[in-house]
Amino acid sequence: MLAVEFDGELKVSEVPLAPIPSGEVRIEMLMSGICNTDLEICRGYMNYRGILGHEFVGIVSECGADIPRAEAERWLGQRVVGEINCGCGKCRLCLGGDTRHCQQRTTLGIDRRPGTFAQCFNLPVANLYEVPDNISNSQAIFAEPLAAAWNILEQVHVQPNSKVLILGDGKLGQLTAQVLRLTACDLTVVGKHSEKLQLLQKQNIKTALLPEWREDLGELSAYDLAVEATGSAEGLDLVLRSVRPRGTVVVKSTVADRLSLDFSAIVVREINIVGSRCGRFAPALRSLEMGLIDTAPLLEGVYPLSDAVEAFAQAQQGKLKVALVP
Amino acid sequence: MLAVEFDGELKVSEVPLAPIPSGEVRIEMLMSGICNTDLEICRGYMNYRGILGHEFVGIVSECGADIPRAEAERWLGQRVVGEINCGCGKCRLCLGGDTRHCQQRTTLGIDRRPGTFAQCFNLPVANLYEVPDNISNSQAIFAEPLAAAWNILEQVHVQPNSKVLILGDGKLGQLTAQVLRLTACDLTVVGKHSEKLQLLQKQNIKTALLPEWREDLGELSAYDLAVEATGSAEGLDLVLRSVRPRGTVVVKSTVADRLSLDFSAIVVREINIVGSRCGRFAPALRSLEMGLIDTAPLLEGVYPLSDAVEAFAQAQQGKLKVALVP
Repeated sequence: MLAVEFDGELKVSEVPLAPIPSGEVRIEMLMSGICNTDLEICRGYMNYRGILGHEFVGIVSECGADIPRAEAERWLGQRVVGEINCGCGKCRLCLGGDTRHCQQRTTLGIDRRPGTFAQCFNLPVANLYEVPDNISNSQAIFAEPLAAAWNILEQVHVQPNSKVLILGDGKLGQLTAQVLRLTACDLTVVGKHSEKLQLLQKQNIKTALLPEWREDLGELSAYDLAVEATGSAEGLDLVLRSVRPRGTVVVKSTVADRLSLDFSAIVVREINIVGSRCGRFAPALRSLEMGLIDTAPLLEGVYPLSDAVEAFAQAQQGKLKVALVP
Repeated sequence: MLAVEFDGELKVSEVPLAPIPSGEVRIEMLMSGICNTDLEICRGYMNYRGILGHEFVGIVSECGADIPRAEAERWLGQRVVGEINCGCGKCRLCLGGDTRHCQQRTTLGIDRRPGTFAQCFNLPVANLYEVPDNISNSQAIFAEPLAAAWNILEQVHVQPNSKVLILGDGKLGQLTAQVLRLTACDLTVVGKHSEKLQLLQKQNIKTALLPEWREDLGELSAYDLAVEATGSAEGLDLVLRSVRPRGTVVVKSTVADRLSLDFSAIVVREINIVGSRCGRFAPALRSLEMGLIDTAPLLEGVYPLSDAVEAFAQAQQGKLKVALVP
């Protein structure tokens, strides 16, 4: 089958079909989105080597031999999305129903598990979510990054009158803004790209261009919550300065470098820093099903697997979501 | 009057008595403790120049001319401790009763306000707390650092069954341990000094020596909460590694350097970092009055102001609390 691999460089290869491990199913990929994490892996993040990709929608085409018949019948032919962390199933966290932080976990296309930029891939049946009929493939590929945006509300209590900043107008900033606006909070998104900020203005979200906003920052250190969605060291410094004393900073981006920070300022201003990663798929799917999130303007390119190198180049150049199809 | 100043180097000088500003009182120092922040200021922290010191107990000897007579009568001759942050009295934070984060604040002996290592010093009447009779001077000087320890429980909900680590067996670690043990949490203090850890063992607090503990750390990443009380970059790295996924790290120490951190690990493990600084005096005084905290073993030296350079040298060499008297 055709697959997009990273082995020090990005390439499209013909690879053998992998056998289905115990407890897992084979999924035929329908569409799969390129995430910033994929771009970072190509710069060395996680030292991952193998098939990339973790945002997907697909059809369950085969179930592992040990899947009980009733369960196999439930899933075969279903259109699904799936959580990307695959736990050991035995530890306290997995038994508590949350594999996201299992110490033995593999992560789809990120850590010791072949990803979704291929005609087929495997995933534990426990990770699957059926996609409601009124969610298209082009919407369903956003389930994973949208779950990551909803995760902020799992971790932090955003109040209806909170003053909130999102720094970054890319994919993550856009989805986070669409989620946080639903809290009715006093939201501002700051970015570098007027055409991306315009997408948010259409939803009546307040926006500002970074250079102008930064000039006023001295007096504007009044946000209750600021979300770092740029993935840059400069972004982290800015959000730390932008919140009020005892304010909260959510850091969503994984970056390949160590960052240097003025920790005494964090102590003196008693800032709360919250690392935030993968979320639950159920709220993400519900929000898509209810039409609360508009993903259409975010999908800016769809390429066949065979043109993955060009698709990655487009994503690298700042396009919002770029997706692959078989 | 005699005072201990830092002007690039530490020295004891004869300085003129300062006039009493509006809304303030003059306090005759009875005893004043040396804090790690004083040592850090001598290494460049805050760029402070002037009279050092902020942990004190003293007697109100004179009230500013604009203090109403009834209020002056209430305070004159009283033995007091006092909060160290002096707010503008007009901003939203000050009007809300919390001057600790007023942007215009001065801070006693730390930021644009002469400190307590002197025969007399001034402080706003609003900052004063009367010291109950059953709290000795040697206990009362701990009100400020003890308030900083109680501040952790103002910021973080430590549950009775939380698994908690304190890294550091110095002054801050000792007081924090005495406060957190009152929650009945599962507490361990890790430090480098067996004689300091023994003080905690006498209170039936679990302790471990750093080298042995660090060897087991790989499997021990299970703390719900870890408090950094060493003030070192290595300490911060260790507490970040020691907590469970979604665990909380409290950073208490102000350090003069920028620190480099692996932020992607913080994001992937979804760690919550809480900067923590000054606390409220009322709970600190209540806990001393009720005998919940034993400060006696922590006071390891008392020197006259004239011997402040030697006192600082003792504090620098790792003594627990060293205090000055007039």
